[in-house]
Amino acid sequence: MVPTTRVAFPLQAYTRPVSESPVSTPADGRLLALQDVATQLRVDSVRATTAAGSGHPTSCASAADLVAAIFFDAMRFAPETPRDPACDRFVLSKGHAAPLLYAAWAAVGLLDRKDLVQLRQIDSDLEGHPTPRLPFVDVATGSLGQGLGVGVGLALGARMLGTDARVFVLLGDGEMAEGSVWEAAEMASHEKVDNLIAIVDVNGLGQSGPTMLNHDLKAYQRRLAAFGWRTSVIDGHDMTQITVALRRATRARGAPTAIIAGTVKGKGLGPEVEGKEGWHGKPLPADMAERVIASLEAGLHHLPPPPIRRPRRRVGRTALPAPQPITGKPPLGEIATRQAYGEALVRVGESDARVRVLDGDVKNSTYAEKFKERFPDRFIEGWIAEQNMVSTAAGLAAQGFVPFVSSFACFLERAADQIRMAGISRANVKLCGSHAGVSIGEDGPSQMALEDLALFRAIPEAVVFYPSDGVATDAAVQLATGRKGVAYIRTTRGKTPGLYGENDAFAVGQLKVVRRGERDRLAIVAAGITLHEAVAAHDELAKSGVAVRIIDLFCVKPVDAAALLEHARACDNRILTVEDHYAEGGIGDAVLEAVGTADVAVHRLAVREIPRSGPPKQLLERYGIGRGAILTKVREILGG
Amino acid sequence: MVPTTRVAFPLQAYTRPVSESPVSTPADGRLLALQDVATQLRVDSVRATTAAGSGHPTSCASAADLVAAIFFDAMRFAPETPRDPACDRFVLSKGHAAPLLYAAWAAVGLLDRKDLVQLRQIDSDLEGHPTPRLPFVDVATGSLGQGLGVGVGLALGARMLGTDARVFVLLGDGEMAEGSVWEAAEMASHEKVDNLIAIVDVNGLGQSGPTMLNHDLKAYQRRLAAFGWRTSVIDGHDMTQITVALRRATRARGAPTAIIAGTVKGKGLGPEVEGKEGWHGKPLPADMAERVIASLEAGLHHLPPPPIRRPRRRVGRTALPAPQPITGKPPLGEIATRQAYGEALVRVGESDARVRVLDGDVKNSTYAEKFKERFPDRFIEGWIAEQNMVSTAAGLAAQGFVPFVSSFACFLERAADQIRMAGISRANVKLCGSHAGVSIGEDGPSQMALEDLALFRAIPEAVVFYPSDGVATDAAVQLATGRKGVAYIRTTRGKTPGLYGENDAFAVGQLKVVRRGERDRLAIVAAGITLHEAVAAHDELAKSGVAVRIIDLFCVKPVDAAALLEHARACDNRILTVEDHYAEGGIGDAVLEAVGTADVAVHRLAVREIPRSGPPKQLLERYGIGRGAILTKVREILGG
Repeated sequence: MVPTTRVAFPLQAYTRPVSESPVSTPADGRLLALQDVATQLRVDSVRATTAAGSGHPTSCASAADLVAAIFFDAMRFAPETPRDPACDRFVLSKGHAAPLLYAAWAAVGLLDRKDLVQLRQIDSDLEGHPTPRLPFVDVATGSLGQGLGVGVGLALGARMLGTDARVFVLLGDGEMAEGSVWEAAEMASHEKVDNLIAIVDVNGLGQSGPTMLNHDLKAYQRRLAAFGWRTSVIDGHDMTQITVALRRATRARGAPTAIIAGTVKGKGLGPEVEGKEGWHGKPLPADMAERVIASLEAGLHHLPPPPIRRPRRRVGRTALPAPQPITGKPPLGEIATRQAYGEALVRVGESDARVRVLDGDVKNSTYAEKFKERFPDRFIEGWIAEQNMVSTAAGLAAQGFVPFVSSFACFLERAADQIRMAGISRANVKLCGSHAGVSIGEDGPSQMALEDLALFRAIPEAVVFYPSDGVATDAAVQLATGRKGVAYIRTTRGKTPGLYGENDAFAVGQLKVVRRGERDRLAIVAAGITLHEAVAAHDELAKSGVAVRIIDLFCVKPVDAAALLEHARACDNRILTVEDHYAEGGIGDAVLEAVGTADVAVHRLAVREIPRSGPPKQLLERYGIGRGAILTKVREILGG
Repeated sequence: MVPTTRVAFPLQAYTRPVSESPVSTPADGRLLALQDVATQLRVDSVRATTAAGSGHPTSCASAADLVAAIFFDAMRFAPETPRDPACDRFVLSKGHAAPLLYAAWAAVGLLDRKDLVQLRQIDSDLEGHPTPRLPFVDVATGSLGQGLGVGVGLALGARMLGTDARVFVLLGDGEMAEGSVWEAAEMASHEKVDNLIAIVDVNGLGQSGPTMLNHDLKAYQRRLAAFGWRTSVIDGHDMTQITVALRRATRARGAPTAIIAGTVKGKGLGPEVEGKEGWHGKPLPADMAERVIASLEAGLHHLPPPPIRRPRRRVGRTALPAPQPITGKPPLGEIATRQAYGEALVRVGESDARVRVLDGDVKNSTYAEKFKERFPDRFIEGWIAEQNMVSTAAGLAAQGFVPFVSSFACFLERAADQIRMAGISRANVKLCGSHAGVSIGEDGPSQMALEDLALFRAIPEAVVFYPSDGVATDAAVQLATGRKGVAYIRTTRGKTPGLYGENDAFAVGQLKVVRRGERDRLAIVAAGITLHEAVAAHDELAKSGVAVRIIDLFCVKPVDAAALLEHARACDNRILTVEDHYAEGGIGDAVLEAVGTADVAVHRLAVREIPRSGPPKQLLERYGIGRGAILTKVREILGG
């Protein structure tokens, strides 16, 4: 490596055009038929949004020609089984163009065109932005910039399944400003997913004004080329250019392809609207809609849509063999739960071929590297790009895989919005956050997750595990694998003693009792590092004859409310929660909600200020959640 | 716009080299002195991390030459007032190289070199990653990929203050994978902040293995050039190349500059370590450290460091005039609180010259556009890049401004990690999230913030406002402006009636009572849209003689616990919380925590499933937080 100042910079050498191999141009009749499809998509989008009284017809109109060509000239799919691994997938990253998506599936015949006007009604699945309530939607979109990462996951998944399926992602230009798009872009070229085709609808207008780059198509091209993509710039309303670009893209090898399409917002909706500001997210008034529809329909050639292309063969779910029983044993005795996580991944990986693991350049800390060592082809390095890692996992899940995503718990928060959208998608994504809380020690507050439980508890239907030893961690990984939907596992950096035997059973929504007596005066509810602190406090209290119960809140969501209440009743209606987490949104809140209306006094120990660097034991005491702090608090509560 | 397929692509036309105007090369003596500084930085970094028993000496060593040249040849600053607006700033985006930063400030004389071994001790401010407990740290770093966005804010701030101060940001190569870096990169070139200089330490090794691009310096150059930066590639251990590149960079005009420096991880720490995997985040063993230090010191030329360069003149805080009293009146009567937010921004903007506003391409929805119309030069379009918007705001705050950041509340979650770091930084950043909850209606779940209160409540020291009318919103904006630190304001999409008069007073941590009687049997605690639903329920209940108290939880954090308890006592120890938020982490949890150990039954209404699209009123009832649901719940509680 002998870098020099101001190197000569032959950028064009890195600009790989889309395949130059000859592709046929569609015949004129086919082009006219595709134009008719596009016109009908515009008509349907206008009609649906005007009926709904809200929505984004102009964002549909700019992309109508692109979508017509994608659905009726480029994609190979089976409308009756859109999620078959052999089928090409379509991701509408610019989710606000949902009416266009619904219109396309109506054109294909999967929806009834007359139902399109149910858009945005409370009992219609044709929601304002697409969600997987619909069979042809793989992930919910509408939070911009996430579709390309999902596309990376779908494309990787197709490759892993050995199919030749492609993935088409339609992006808006405004969302190209999102960093998550560039995380996906770098990942796609690094992984050489040449079955991924991004189509950027550059209409130049955002919600509140022109986009940053307006119609500078070459700026988008330069950026995508620099990120390793094959690129092509086209007129997004010229059906010949569109179909040729798409046909070339599907033949590209060695790199993903981006088609940068210059378009006009509101194209076809008349001079009052076309390319004009002030029309984002606004339906046309009824009389105007009628005029526009009449004008659009007057331009129809009344040709039937071209027949859709079908995949060569269906694959079905048999591509991935059914899970086998788990073999071997969970780790007994002292172990860091993060290490137990890595070992558990190997165990579920051996039993379940669907399992895939992603990690954000901390695999030697999260112990995801154990899985990589055992199954190198089923491990995906996610780099320091957590947003894309979660979106990619959502895409893999939509191909039938069970992806586990790991990083330091605090860095998973980088993907909070992707996790939120995974929740809305009911994506089968599992996340593991290591290095929870102040107990990580010297690295300091930037590396301490103290709000991750708040984040994950607020994902509907998510399950949140906080295991406290190797056996429990192993169980959490198995339970997460076996249950569809988002699951989170919180692990601890330091080693902790074993608590459970290999025959101890764990379940979603079930707590464990680790110390109990007949005359317990208080139930201490904890998990992870603080559970061990609580056990130490218990033993110390026992010496002076004070009996407390120690409850392991293995499953922080859903909480085992009935059992909690029962234990509270048995312990003089007193609970003390102890957590290596801020007071907001974690174990204390979870317990309070569970017993809120009952006559139970819930005392709480949690981190209540911005912590510092320092040795773990010192930090636990300084922030009031160590064994000493527990002893003090118990004596205060019990007046001892 | 007539784009064509496969345009000729003259990329080199867009690759602007760093200024070619002649710069002097430092004399040999100066170069040797700078090398001595770098050697001493390595010695100090090794010594401190070995003493601490943890830390990242190899990540310090790769950047030591760069930092020596930045501090002793490029930066103009005053160590005694490092935050003076005239001073150049240095941001260590690769925060794990903290010992290098501390060593640099020791070399400057601001720290005592012998104190460097206090690194990572619990009572030392020399934390594992830098925090603003130290006077020369503007923002906490350690969550990678955030420093460049902060640099954009510092650079914009310097320009707004009319100083010629520059901002130097040192990035690691691993963090270049973070999308947030590319958000900052596009923003910097768009805003033409030519006083921003990024130095990328490309040592090719991440934590757990080689980085995605390893030592492909030209790949970084292509990407940054495509994002509009002037670029230069150098050997990061050649002091001549470094100083010349930095000197050129400080003369560049019209665009930010990136210096891509090829380096060796662990450079100077001996052949066992240099460029080797497996040494990330590991201190050298004591005997090895001794050997390495001896070898480093043997290479010293024993020259004193060059004198630091000082800014031409100090500016002081007088650059921004003191706030004047607020004039005019808050909006009375019916108004959407999001609109009241926009109007309040104008009011505080008129009284306080420090106020700046950023918005993520939704200024016509958040009403931040009102501020833009009144103060175009004080408004910064943040585009659809929320992460960078928050980091830029943190940078502006570090220059003495009071930045308000707005977007849909759900999209602020995109910046959850940046908000977390703003909290650790105690940054003076204000955020407003509009379109909270299911009450936004037809746009559907992707646009509904239902977990934003959980996010912001878990930021230590943050204040969270949830105003329910125009007067309260105006007060929230004023209170947020006047109080240092992170503040969040949650606004509602739809119009709601006025509740307060212009003389009603609001305070941080204080609730308001909007309906009360002598024989109230239940206190309903709500805020925003649900407060109005509760008032409607109150009026309906009153018809049948059922008296309930209605409490406006204007300030969700900190909660007015004493007043809450008092009202609970006055209302038969019964509370019902109602919130347009998931049950986890919001108003219910806040209220429960406040009265947790007391003998109060807290009933809760909150959104408990993934919502759908639909009309707002229908959604409020369907998800159990509308007036009808409140009536049903109250009757159930009171057995009526």
